[in-house]
Amino acid sequence: MKGRKYMDPTKYWMWYPGDFSIHQGMQQNFAREERGMGWPAYWYIDDCNRNVKFTRSYQLDQPTEFTVYAHGVGYVDINGVKHQLGKTLHCDSGENVITIFVGNPQGLPCVFVDGEIIKSDGGWEASNFVSSLPAGHDPLFTTKTQNPNMIEFQKKAIKPKKITEVQAGVLFDFGRAVNGRLKLNLHHKKAVTICYGESKTEALDVQMCYYKQEAVDKETPIRKRAFRYIFIPDAKQRDVDVTAVHEYIPKNNRSVFRSDQQLINRIWDVSTETLNLCSDIFFIDGIKRDRWIWAGDAYQANFINQYSFFNEDIDKRTLLTLRGQDDIKQHINTIVDYSMLWVIGVLNHYEMTGDIDFLKIVYPKMKSMVDYFMRQTNDKGFIYGRPNDWIFVDWSEMDKQGTVAAEQALLIQVYKTMVTCGSVLKQPINDYQKRHDQLLDNFIAYFWSDSKGAFIDSYESGKNHVTRHANIFAILFDLVDDDKKQLILKNVLLNDKVTQITTPYFKFFEQDALCKLGLRDNVYKVILDYWGGMLDKGAVTFWEEYDPTKSGKDMYEMYGDPYGKSLCHAWGASPIYLLGRYFVGLYPTRPGYREFNVEPKLKQFRTLHTVLPIKGGEVTLDKDGDRLSVTASKDGGSLIVGSNEYPLVAGRELSVQIG
Amino acid sequence: MKGRKYMDPTKYWMWYPGDFSIHQGMQQNFAREERGMGWPAYWYIDDCNRNVKFTRSYQLDQPTEFTVYAHGVGYVDINGVKHQLGKTLHCDSGENVITIFVGNPQGLPCVFVDGEIIKSDGGWEASNFVSSLPAGHDPLFTTKTQNPNMIEFQKKAIKPKKITEVQAGVLFDFGRAVNGRLKLNLHHKKAVTICYGESKTEALDVQMCYYKQEAVDKETPIRKRAFRYIFIPDAKQRDVDVTAVHEYIPKNNRSVFRSDQQLINRIWDVSTETLNLCSDIFFIDGIKRDRWIWAGDAYQANFINQYSFFNEDIDKRTLLTLRGQDDIKQHINTIVDYSMLWVIGVLNHYEMTGDIDFLKIVYPKMKSMVDYFMRQTNDKGFIYGRPNDWIFVDWSEMDKQGTVAAEQALLIQVYKTMVTCGSVLKQPINDYQKRHDQLLDNFIAYFWSDSKGAFIDSYESGKNHVTRHANIFAILFDLVDDDKKQLILKNVLLNDKVTQITTPYFKFFEQDALCKLGLRDNVYKVILDYWGGMLDKGAVTFWEEYDPTKSGKDMYEMYGDPYGKSLCHAWGASPIYLLGRYFVGLYPTRPGYREFNVEPKLKQFRTLHTVLPIKGGEVTLDKDGDRLSVTASKDGGSLIVGSNEYPLVAGRELSVQIG
Repeated sequence: MKGRKYMDPTKYWMWYPGDFSIHQGMQQNFAREERGMGWPAYWYIDDCNRNVKFTRSYQLDQPTEFTVYAHGVGYVDINGVKHQLGKTLHCDSGENVITIFVGNPQGLPCVFVDGEIIKSDGGWEASNFVSSLPAGHDPLFTTKTQNPNMIEFQKKAIKPKKITEVQAGVLFDFGRAVNGRLKLNLHHKKAVTICYGESKTEALDVQMCYYKQEAVDKETPIRKRAFRYIFIPDAKQRDVDVTAVHEYIPKNNRSVFRSDQQLINRIWDVSTETLNLCSDIFFIDGIKRDRWIWAGDAYQANFINQYSFFNEDIDKRTLLTLRGQDDIKQHINTIVDYSMLWVIGVLNHYEMTGDIDFLKIVYPKMKSMVDYFMRQTNDKGFIYGRPNDWIFVDWSEMDKQGTVAAEQALLIQVYKTMVTCGSVLKQPINDYQKRHDQLLDNFIAYFWSDSKGAFIDSYESGKNHVTRHANIFAILFDLVDDDKKQLILKNVLLNDKVTQITTPYFKFFEQDALCKLGLRDNVYKVILDYWGGMLDKGAVTFWEEYDPTKSGKDMYEMYGDPYGKSLCHAWGASPIYLLGRYFVGLYPTRPGYREFNVEPKLKQFRTLHTVLPIKGGEVTLDKDGDRLSVTASKDGGSLIVGSNEYPLVAGRELSVQIG
Repeated sequence: MKGRKYMDPTKYWMWYPGDFSIHQGMQQNFAREERGMGWPAYWYIDDCNRNVKFTRSYQLDQPTEFTVYAHGVGYVDINGVKHQLGKTLHCDSGENVITIFVGNPQGLPCVFVDGEIIKSDGGWEASNFVSSLPAGHDPLFTTKTQNPNMIEFQKKAIKPKKITEVQAGVLFDFGRAVNGRLKLNLHHKKAVTICYGESKTEALDVQMCYYKQEAVDKETPIRKRAFRYIFIPDAKQRDVDVTAVHEYIPKNNRSVFRSDQQLINRIWDVSTETLNLCSDIFFIDGIKRDRWIWAGDAYQANFINQYSFFNEDIDKRTLLTLRGQDDIKQHINTIVDYSMLWVIGVLNHYEMTGDIDFLKIVYPKMKSMVDYFMRQTNDKGFIYGRPNDWIFVDWSEMDKQGTVAAEQALLIQVYKTMVTCGSVLKQPINDYQKRHDQLLDNFIAYFWSDSKGAFIDSYESGKNHVTRHANIFAILFDLVDDDKKQLILKNVLLNDKVTQITTPYFKFFEQDALCKLGLRDNVYKVILDYWGGMLDKGAVTFWEEYDPTKSGKDMYEMYGDPYGKSLCHAWGASPIYLLGRYFVGLYPTRPGYREFNVEPKLKQFRTLHTVLPIKGGEVTLDKDGDRLSVTASKDGGSLIVGSNEYPLVAGRELSVQIG
């Protein structure tokens, strides 16, 4: 068995851990555009370190040579003697201590060490002259000619599917959502206006479409934008050819879902397309708008990713950029609950991947984040908002007087996360456990209303107002016993008198909670109606929000903007998670799927062929009437059917007869 | 009288306060070069904020228009409606709230507001989404076509004074120190090697000269470097013409010193040239090496600047960049005493300028810096070094066991600074006063040795070792009564058994202390010998260090490098301060020279004509034998001659007969 640290055949660009994600994430949060204006995110934004050194010592059996490539200014120190970057350098046998200094005034300081023995694989420490940690790297950057300051997107030329002359102009329908640059070939025109639309309605609205570029001639650089339709007013079809060059980072889509339910199959595929588009380097909320990295959206995207691409890199980059540099200046995206979802998201990432190396890098940042929470808790352990903190939870009406129930539910799960992750790393966890227990007790003592049989928003206001949110979190995080769960189901989730969840963001949590309580039939109906409804309206990706009562132009309005709605929004892909987690019933029972269950509940499907990813492998399940066959590519799985549990052996198909 | 905030005719580029200096200072600290290698400073380096917003509200009597120029992406919000940058925007009369958002992923986010009424003068607040402060600006950037990311140096072409064919090559002597780029005109050569030298010896040392550029042809970009000599090996004079393009930021040199002592006059002029070269945007240590911004060097440069250029902007920029962003990650330049000199330096800047606006911006950063010190004090109030803290003081041998005397002396002065500056801003100062008093008591109780009649380095070691450093600080900061001062003078400063100060850095403090104790004659001799000695060696600027016992190639060696010594080093200019402060005897007695004394001690000069700057004016002094004439351009001055004190009236010459 080869030693991972020293024998890894791959060389990669190295940086101070987190810096690549923080630097790229900063640029992502500056990438929003609206009607000719750049719209930087409205919060404090970190950048990478400017000045970094990389150190490693080698005990050499023989002399060797190497070359250091860098982006930035600096030098290579070998045993106290300075050498130039980019030159072939020599080390004699014996102990050699190598330190590479690199400063980059504008971009990411990073180095690539190219040699037979001395090379940038594992084992290098990076320091910003304050802290020293294992150097960061990314599988996207593994050759010396690359520059980690430039993302190398794959490009795919896409021709319009349909071209129509309309409104004294030409409408191009690409038949799919494109995130890229337009190429124009002007035949009879000097310059034209380009109107973009995720919908036809938007593209044709020359006045109000979200993206528009005017006076575009052959030379005009055209910026990367997301669209399905292009409208060129005041032109004929013969005047102009357009090609869209879609830009993307290829991902390995490891999931398949093919059943006799054609609508569900299409929902699965469009969900996959939606998440795929919203996740190149990071999980962003939407490709047209905001293009920002929101912790709440990313938290949900992580769950969906687990059942589709199982792309750990996007997860890690997103977690690192959201948290930023060590010093905490404000809550993530300014939102207290998003900071807490970030911590909880690390737990989900760990359970999905079992990645202890990542946990080691991120744990100090979790700890300082939780310290930050603890500084805003009161004597009962309840977290409260300070001036400039946004206690968001959701857009719903909620009684936010004093401390708020949903925030406490999240904080309980935060402490649980610290206990779990801290234990893995053998860190002290007693304080977190104590705070967890105290907060859980007080949460129930103060926020549970026996008369309502539910959690109330606020105990300080005296209004005893019930919303769904804290109750949903209580289910998801197992904060209450089965009796209270059933009370919540009856008094809240299935109680139409309690204001409905109106945002797809919280709808995700609600569907998750309903499935957890066994109400898959209800959820299945929602999938067909809500997601099926969007397909009926011609959706090629799933939307930020769908209201079946709206039609025509009204469908696209949001936040007071006629085209404010994003028609390709990451959380729109949630059916993948709901189907994978609760219908196919696949989930890890030990981190990184060292052990996992397949617990299918597939009565809605007569036939199904599905492949779902697990860490380091995949699970294939086929249903054909009463016959169920399951194959896992690695050991550790159990098939659970009714009260029976069957162990799965790597690569061996297990077939059972079902009810 | 016009209201300063609203009527200032100047418009300027604005940024988050401190950001311009922090961003440029970062680049300055990356500007070092040695033998083809970039050498970034070896400490944590901050950069500017990436995402900033600027806000101001106007109550308009009439409609008005304005345009916002920015470096970065963003938009202008007028009363909640977004508008594009770079377009003419309209405001109706009445209340108008304007917020400009700008993010810059690589450089300094900054804006210029161009309008009749709505414009970037005073009154704008800048926020990094965490803190909000009056926007920063700089007199260098006042027109909309500028970019504060680019320093616009003035350029001056300089032809070689002397060209010699030597060592089978051509030597060009420019007769002065140049900091700029070389222009080559190659006649008979395809490509040449350029060897640079501050000295002829260095330029001719093709192997070891500090800067060298090889294979330079007509197209090769030549980097900005500091030099007096250029040697082109393997060439004849007819092969190549060279011109040096010196780059500089013009400063107003308000000082003159013309006496019957020609050597002193030359020392004054060469000092002025030296400081001038070492201070474009910031006070750097030297123009060849390090080109970094060191707090100790800058502290001294500030004192010299006060008597020459009186350039407040360089002072402010240097103080802001040294301190960096709010969060403190380590001591300035990693040195504990340099962090303390930074705080004390703000006091000197305030006493020199009386600039309360600057004090308001910098005081929160002084406070957090002092909090940082207090976290590393023990129960006696003594500051100690932690791992990775550098307790420098000076390069001399010193007993650094436990807490060190010189550091305590600085901390006492730090507390005094906080009391003074805090009082000006009406901030609470009791805690600083209490700590000051306790520390001063303990400093004397523990570090004063009655048997030595001096401060010892360390009381913990039991060695009772005396060095000059703490004793010098005790004089400079008035930490002891006159009896102890005289003991220090006798037992330390004039005691050859106490190890001599060997660095010019601490020599500055020593000469200052000697002058303070009235030993001007000794100091005058030092000026003639030490600085005069350098002139004898052909110096055109003053050196980092001068040892009269060395000659030839040895003169240029330092830090183990044959050309490691900087021959144009800011602290080399200290005669300006010593002559201005103690011989001409000019000093403020109230901040910003609202009151000031001229207390001449000029027995070494039979005739003298000198002009020295004060805040908002200047003082002219003429001595001709027994006749002394003094004119101050503003009120508040007193001429002190012997026991007589004469008030100075603005613009009116006062003549007195002297002994």
